This record gives sequence, structure tokens and C-alpha cells, in this order.
Amino acid sequence: MHRSRLCSILLDCSAETMEAGVHFWQQALGVTARGADEPTSPYVTLGGGAGGLQFYLQRVHDTSRIHLDIETDNVEAEVQRLEKLGARRKGPIQTWWVMEDPCGHLFCIVPAHSDAFATQAQIWED
Amino acid sequence: MHRSRLCSILLDCSAETMEAGVHFWQQALGVTARGADEPTSPYVTLGGGAGGLQFYLQRVHDTSRIHLDIETDNVEAEVQRLEKLGARRKGPIQTWWVMEDPCGHLFCIVPAHSDAFATQAQIWED
Repeated sequence: MHRSRLCSILLDCSAETMEAGVHFWQQALGVTARGADEPTSPYVTLGGGAGGLQFYLQRVHDTSRIHLDIETDNVEAEVQRLEKLGARRKGPIQTWWVMEDPCGHLFCIVPAHSDAFATQAQIWED
Repeated sequence: MHRSRLCSILLDCSAETMEAGVHFWQQALGVTARGADEPTSPYVTLGGGAGGLQFYLQRVHDTSRIHLDIETDNVEAEVQRLEKLGARRKGPIQTWWVMEDPCGHLFCIVPAHSDAFATQAQIWED
């Protein structure tokens, strides 16, 4: 048995547009960015989240896109569950896996880290 | 004065992968899709939404991507506000505008339609 939930929406911003992206989305949504002054982190959090979903901008060395994160208490079991449903592994990064859905959207399976995990995660029988 | 809020996350699925996308995301998130049996609509709703955010799959005649929708009670005023912040118009569709942020992410400005609009929308002085 393991658990998982959709936890985050990430706007991946090419490195040269990240600063403009943070500036734009703060004002577009009327929210405050946290982490924009930490040059060693690629993540900037926008606002306080809604319904347990966090909203981030992430500096990437790639083209800009949007991806989703699913958090879980068992990364390997969740990756295998989603492979059986038609997703495929793209590559491991640190403690998580980048995957691709049947339509070509990228998403990540990451270790559980949110306050909402305990109450909102789905239970899957392995 | 006008109002706006981030209302939706849309997984745009190429026409040939839409059915597989609906099948995958229903089971990946453990939610029920609504609208999958309406062939004239390009939209399928996933689950009941979280924190006022709706989650859709949309059949598109383009490559798969993810985009955000902002709803507003004055589309033209909201488009002009976001242009001043650095976004640009890509093209009009029916009652809404497709726009591009400074990083190259597409998003749409759509007429207000959600129950959460009245209580969650931000107020902007024009």
C-alpha cells in the first residue's frame, strides 16, 4: 500500500526569462513571491496555494513549459503504478522521477512534503 | 475597476492522444472525468476541483501542452492590464483571448464563469 496526491503546478521558465516571469506572475495574480531572493534555489513560490495545491516558478535550462508534481510516500511504487497506466520514465533527478504521460506532458513523482499530504492523499493497494 | 482570478489548469492533449489522456489522468489521480462522452465538446473535467481551481483536459489540434486560464468580468481591461505587465496577445477565440507571458507560456483570459469568482477574484483599478 502507498499513497499519492497532485501537489504542485510548476511554471518552468528558461533561465533568461525567470526574473521577468516572477515579476509578471506576482502582479498578474496579485500574490507575493517567496524565494526570489535565493539565487541558489531554482524555485520561487507564488502565493499561499489553493486547496492544497502549490504554485511555483522554476528556473530551467530548457525551453519554458508547465508541469505537474505528484507527491507520494513511495516514489518507486507510484512510478510503477503510473507506468502500468501508460506513463513512462524520462529520467531520475535526485530523489524524484521525471515521467511523461500518454499525451507527452511531463510530470514529476516526488517524495511527500506538503502539509496536505496526510489528509488529501489517495491510498493505492500495491 | 474590474476583477480577475486564476480559475483553471488545462492539459491540452493532441486529438489522437486525448482518449488515452483522459483514461490515464482519471486513474492516476483517482478522480472521475465528466464530459468524456460528449464528442462535440473539446473539454473533459477531472474531479471536483481544489480551492476553486478546475482541472481540465482539452482536445487540441496542436502539440500537447499545459496552459492556465484567468477569468475576469472585463476581458479587454484584463488583457490590457496584463499587456502592461509584459504579456502579449496571441489571438482571439470566441469570447476569450490567448496570451503569452514573458517566458513563452500560453494562457487564456476568459469571461468569469465559476462559482468562486465572486469571493476569490482580485479587484484591479483601471
